[in-house]
This record gives sequence, C-alpha cells and structure tokens, in this order.
Amino acid sequence: MSGTVVMKFGGTSVADAERIKRAARRIVSAREQGHRVVAVLSARGKTTDELIASAEEVSTNPDPREMDMLLSTGERISCALCAMAINDLGHRAISLTGSQAGIVTDTSHTKARILDVRADRIHQALDEDLIVLVAGFQGVSTARDVTTLGRGGSDTTAVALAAALDAEVCDIYTDVAGVYSADPRIVPDARKLPVVSFEEMLEMSASGAGVLQLRSVEYARNHGVRIHCRSSFTEAPGTLVVGEEETMERPLITAVTHSRDEARLTLLGVPDHPGVSGRIFTALAEANINVDMIIQDEPDDDGAEAHMSFTVPRTDLRQARAALDPVVAEVGIRAIGEDPEMGKVSVVGAGMKSHPGVAAKVFSTLGDQGINIEMISTSPIKISCVVAADAVDRAVRALHEAFDLGADQIEVEHPFGAPA
Amino acid sequence: MSGTVVMKFGGTSVADAERIKRAARRIVSAREQGHRVVAVLSARGKTTDELIASAEEVSTNPDPREMDMLLSTGERISCALCAMAINDLGHRAISLTGSQAGIVTDTSHTKARILDVRADRIHQALDEDLIVLVAGFQGVSTARDVTTLGRGGSDTTAVALAAALDAEVCDIYTDVAGVYSADPRIVPDARKLPVVSFEEMLEMSASGAGVLQLRSVEYARNHGVRIHCRSSFTEAPGTLVVGEEETMERPLITAVTHSRDEARLTLLGVPDHPGVSGRIFTALAEANINVDMIIQDEPDDDGAEAHMSFTVPRTDLRQARAALDPVVAEVGIRAIGEDPEMGKVSVVGAGMKSHPGVAAKVFSTLGDQGINIEMISTSPIKISCVVAADAVDRAVRALHEAFDLGADQIEVEHPFGAPA
Repeated sequence: MSGTVVMKFGGTSVADAERIKRAARRIVSAREQGHRVVAVLSARGKTTDELIASAEEVSTNPDPREMDMLLSTGERISCALCAMAINDLGHRAISLTGSQAGIVTDTSHTKARILDVRADRIHQALDEDLIVLVAGFQGVSTARDVTTLGRGGSDTTAVALAAALDAEVCDIYTDVAGVYSADPRIVPDARKLPVVSFEEMLEMSASGAGVLQLRSVEYARNHGVRIHCRSSFTEAPGTLVVGEEETMERPLITAVTHSRDEARLTLLGVPDHPGVSGRIFTALAEANINVDMIIQDEPDDDGAEAHMSFTVPRTDLRQARAALDPVVAEVGIRAIGEDPEMGKVSVVGAGMKSHPGVAAKVFSTLGDQGINIEMISTSPIKISCVVAADAVDRAVRALHEAFDLGADQIEVEHPFGAPA
Repeated sequence: MSGTVVMKFGGTSVADAERIKRAARRIVSAREQGHRVVAVLSARGKTTDELIASAEEVSTNPDPREMDMLLSTGERISCALCAMAINDLGHRAISLTGSQAGIVTDTSHTKARILDVRADRIHQALDEDLIVLVAGFQGVSTARDVTTLGRGGSDTTAVALAAALDAEVCDIYTDVAGVYSADPRIVPDARKLPVVSFEEMLEMSASGAGVLQLRSVEYARNHGVRIHCRSSFTEAPGTLVVGEEETMERPLITAVTHSRDEARLTLLGVPDHPGVSGRIFTALAEANINVDMIIQDEPDDDGAEAHMSFTVPRTDLRQARAALDPVVAEVGIRAIGEDPEMGKVSVVGAGMKSHPGVAAKVFSTLGDQGINIEMISTSPIKISCVVAADAVDRAVRALHEAFDLGADQIEVEHPFGAPA
C-alpha cells in the first residue's frame, strides 16, 4: 500500500452520466495502483446556477444559512452518483457530506472558512479499504449548520483534506490540461508548464489565470500541499504546483496572464487631507467591492488636491459609483471619471527577482505595439499593466513572444514521468 | 402562546415557486395564530423521480446507502427554499435535515424505520421563536448514515414529530380536500368525510385510498396523533383522523375504496402436506412480493391435494411467477393459473361491527349488477371483494349508492368549525 492521494473533480468533469463513470474509472485506477483514495467532487455542470435561480424565484434576498442548505445538495448528488458507479465497477466506495467528512468551518454562511478538518471518519473508511468520496465546497459550522465555502470552494476542500491526510499529492482534475504560459485561446503556441511554484501560481490566479482558485493555492502553500492540476479527459500529466525549493532553475518569466473585465474609476480633485483615502476605500469595502490597482498622483502645485485612480471588476462598476456618491459629496471630490473598458496584462516569474531588466522589457514591448499603459503595479515576481480592453490580446501575444515563452520550450522531465 | 402544530406539505404542494410561497404564507398564518409551528416538506414535484433516473443512468444496481444520500437532497431543497420564502415574509424560519431534526432510524437503507426522535434542536429553535422546517422522508441511522423511509415517508416524519412534540394536531396538506366516501373521479357525489377513526383509515389506506400512507396512520394510532388531512389550495377543513373514542355515532359504512391493479394466481393441485403453504409464501416474501388476499379450497375428496388462490399487485406478477417456479417443481404443484386483470372493491366502516347484515348487502348489490365476486376477505370493519378490473367502477358506484353514502349527507359539525 502506497500513500494517500486526494483527487478533485470539477463540475464539468461530472456533468453527465458518462463523465461520472469516467471519473469513477479514474478513481478506481488510482485505487488499483495501491493508493488510499479520497475524491472530492463539485456539483454537476449547471446545478449550482439552477439552485441559485430557484432561490431567486422564491425570495428577493435569500437567507444565507438557507442558501447554504440549498447549494450543498449539488455536491452530495455528484458524490452519491459517483459512489454508485464505483460500486458497479466492483470496488467499494462511500460518499460523505462535508459535515460527515469533518470539514469544520466558521459560521460565515456562503463564504465560510475552514477552521479544522476532523478526519476520523475518513481514516476509518480508508482503513476499511473503502474509496472515500467527499462533497466539496461545504462543511459544518461550529453552530452545527451546513455552510459553503464560496465559489471554487471544492478546490479548497480538496487541498484541506490533502493537508489533513498528509496526502502525497492533491490532483485537481479540470477541463484544461494544466497551467499554460498564456491562455492558449489567445496564444496558440502557449506551452503547458510542468512545474510552477506556489508564489507564481498565487500571482497568476490573482491576475486572471482561472484554472486554480486563489484561496486553495494559499491553503496549499501554507500547508505544503503539492497540487497536480490536470485534465480529466486524458492521462497526460498536467502542471505540478509545489514549493519553490522543489522547482528547478527557472526561466526569467513563467507566464503571461490577463483579464479583460476591468473598469477604472478616477477621482478628480481629492482633498489632500489625512483620512480621505480611508473614507473612500472603506465605503467600497463595505459595498463588497474588490479594488485591485490604486494610483494616487502628486498633489497639485498648491498641495491642496490630488487625483486618484483605481480599478474594479467591470461588473461592480455601478455599485462602486453608488457607494462613492455619498463620499464624493461629503469630502468634496470634484468629479468622478470612469473608463469601463479596461483590461490588465501581467507577466509572472520567480526568476525576475534576480533580473532587474524585466519591467523595462515589458514597457518597451507594449510601446512597440503602440499600446498605451494606463496604470502599473508590481510585486517581486509580477508586473501588471492596465491597458485598453481591446488591446489585451495583442499585449499578451507580444509579451509571450518577447520573453520566448512559446519558442523557448525548455525540456524539463516531468516529475510524474511520461504519460501512461 | 397556544400549542404546537405540525404541518406537512406533499410534493405537489411545493412543486414550484408559487406553491412554495403559498405554503410559506400558510405556515406564517399558523404562526400568527400563536402556534409553535413545525412544517415537514416533501421533495418538489418530480424531483425524486428525476434523482432515481440519474442513479439508473450511472448504475445498474444503485447502492442503497448512496441512493439514500442522493434522494435525501430533494426534501432539503424544498425546506431551504420555503425557509427563504418565510424569512421574506418577515418571520424567522430555520430548515433542518432529518438528521438535524433528530430523526434516528435503523440502518435499513431506502426503507428505514424510525427508532427515536431526539427533538432537542427543534425544541431549542421553537424556544427561540423560530418556525422550524424539517426535511421529510429521511433520518440518520445509528451508523451515522443518511437514511430514507421509503415512499410516503414524509407523512411518517410528520406524524413522528407530532408525537415527539406532543402536538395538538398533525396537518397533512395534499392536493385533495380530504378523505372521501369514495373516489370522486368515479362517484361524483362522493362526500368529504369530516372524521374517520384510525382503524377505518388503516383499512381504507390498505384497500386503495391513496391519500394517507398506511405506515403513518399506524404510527398515528400507536401514538395517539390526531391527523388533519386537508387541501393545500383552500382554507376549508378536511378530514380529521382520530381515535374511535373521539368519533361520534357513526353510520354503518364510512367509505367505499377500490384498487384496479390486482392480479390473481391460482395454484392447482397443491399437495396437502404440512409446510407446503409455508414454502410457497416464504418464496414470495423473499422476492419482496406483497400478497394480499389468500384463499385455500377444501382438499379433494381423497384429501390429497387442494387449490389455492391469492392476489398480488399486477406489477409484481412476473416476479411472483419467477419466485414460484422452483417451488412448483419441488413440492409438486400441478399447474399455475393467472388472472392478470383483477380489481378489488371494499366497504369500510366502524359501524358494521354491530350490524351483521352488511356482507349480505354487499354481495347482493354486486349480484344485482351482474358482477361476479371472485374472492372475499373480511375484517371486523371491512369487507373486500375481488372482481374483474373492468367491473370496479360499476361496483364502487353501486355500493356507494346502496349504502346511501352520497345522498345521506349526515351534517356533522366539523371539529375545526367553518372555513376561515
């Protein structure tokens, strides 16, 4: 008997009977290789959206506790069906709700955080040679109510279980083959990355790579859980997300990521008093708006007022304006400008820490394309530029080429070896 | 604050958003009258059938434990949605799963029996002035697994909670207005019965009246729970099912019930040895076939063999034959005859205990119609006759008229008074 593996299947991987059976076969195959197997399943395809629609039919403002009771049924259905399919293959499986699996959360309904994983029942089932299926995205609160972890929560369930069970790896099965050097829909010769570090993956998730949920990557980094992000439709290895010490000498830049759904708000004539910025961003936070990049200009020559720009998700633009209106009147901001059609392009790479020329190359590459950079923000391993939304694709392609991310295919032996 | 009421809403009463809101208003109205309210909900409309179909898509023989995990989601969805609707009406509601509500069952998956109701959490919620919604049809087993109680199990959940909470009444809301003297689709002047006794209701449920599940009536009788069976679409009172001591002087006959889905098997030349009948009916019981009426003829003059007839649900006919085939060979039964198109008509009434002429009147009424009686069985308060399936409607109408069940509208003041 080798060690424990956690396998997570997303909604598209269990969307219909055929896909559930395929997931069942893959789970059984891991079991037959001698692993102790725990699989975390998401709700099927559109189930969660349909349940949300049902809630909106009966209530204008669905109670969060009841929303969790409602939404948690989706993953239970997936797990029960997959357990049936596995039992039909001659193996023994048991499905567990988040509560039965010991996922203990706080009481923040619809966005609960995991406080503890009490895995006794999972251990007991594994000791009885059972395959264990766990309903993702959910737990039980300290008040004994059903909770959910928010969108993408199944990834977090899987990583938390992998940590609690000291699993060898947390396999995240999805409808893409792994993490790419850029979105292959924009850059046809983008390459699949064999390995990325937690820090790179965090920056990539935060700057538009949709393949892994930011929160699950944070959890994995904090608990040292190796994630293997891979396709549920092929046997080929995907991308391993691991600690930096496990990654080899890295190229300067690992990937180019992007987002097309940004909007910029510009506050003109912000009084240069202490506390004004606090007022502005408290109002936005209270309206639950995620502010991304913030830039404040120098005050005017007379030192009396400044301009301030920041980006928000385009879908939040209207609520952001509504939240700002009272503040504008109160603190005496002169005007608000908005640019709703913005995008963001980012280059991410742990290698740039020791190479100072990356920013210059990013700026000149975009300049050569005639793309205007509206805002810039950086971290030690990331440079992001806000550009016009309709320039995003061109910017991604130009940066991907400038840093040789496609052509310069570094042949790294995959940690899991060749495809089966 | 007056006492506790348990209200149960069936699948058609929560089938869509409008009906859920209507159920919510009705629950709120009971609360506003000062009751402590516990409502038990079934799965919406066709949900259970759809879940069963999903299971059949992934497995030829779905595991019963997983089937229960799957099916139990339907009632949870209804409860969560109804709780949202109640909260929107300005009242506070909480939905509980069968497990959270303390419905403890044995481990017989898909047909579990309730062992205990540990209602502390319900009491606590009621003490906090909450309306409590409980997912029907389900519980948690002594092995901590989700169980279901079998078809119609939500009625049993409601009655069990009413017993545990010492409720004033258990309101069963359904798509019919109450219990009728005969099926109104067959007998247009059938009348709604204001009161029936547990014993009558048991006989009626067992002989074809679909409105209340036999098991829930048994539970109600054993625990003295008053059931009020009523329409979810009107405010009119329905039918009260209570102990005989609570019913008034009763007419001879209360109702005529029927079933159209019977089949008769006749075993010709059954050896007249001890143990042969035991073999036959053990084989049928092991195949899970419900045998209803059994008649054994006198042995032949030489005392060596007998004929035996019994009825089974028509849908079980094929399995019954399969179960009997080995027994036929083994004990030397000469032949099996089958009549697949049989029906059953029954008259039920607590009054017949003290009036000997009822059977004679039933037989002569059917005889006058030229309807042949194939088999007869009786209890102290019921007479059932097996007839050809295509004679059932005529038999029901003739018996209903012969016993004056429609015309002789006895005006009994309804225990709950006039409609609101």
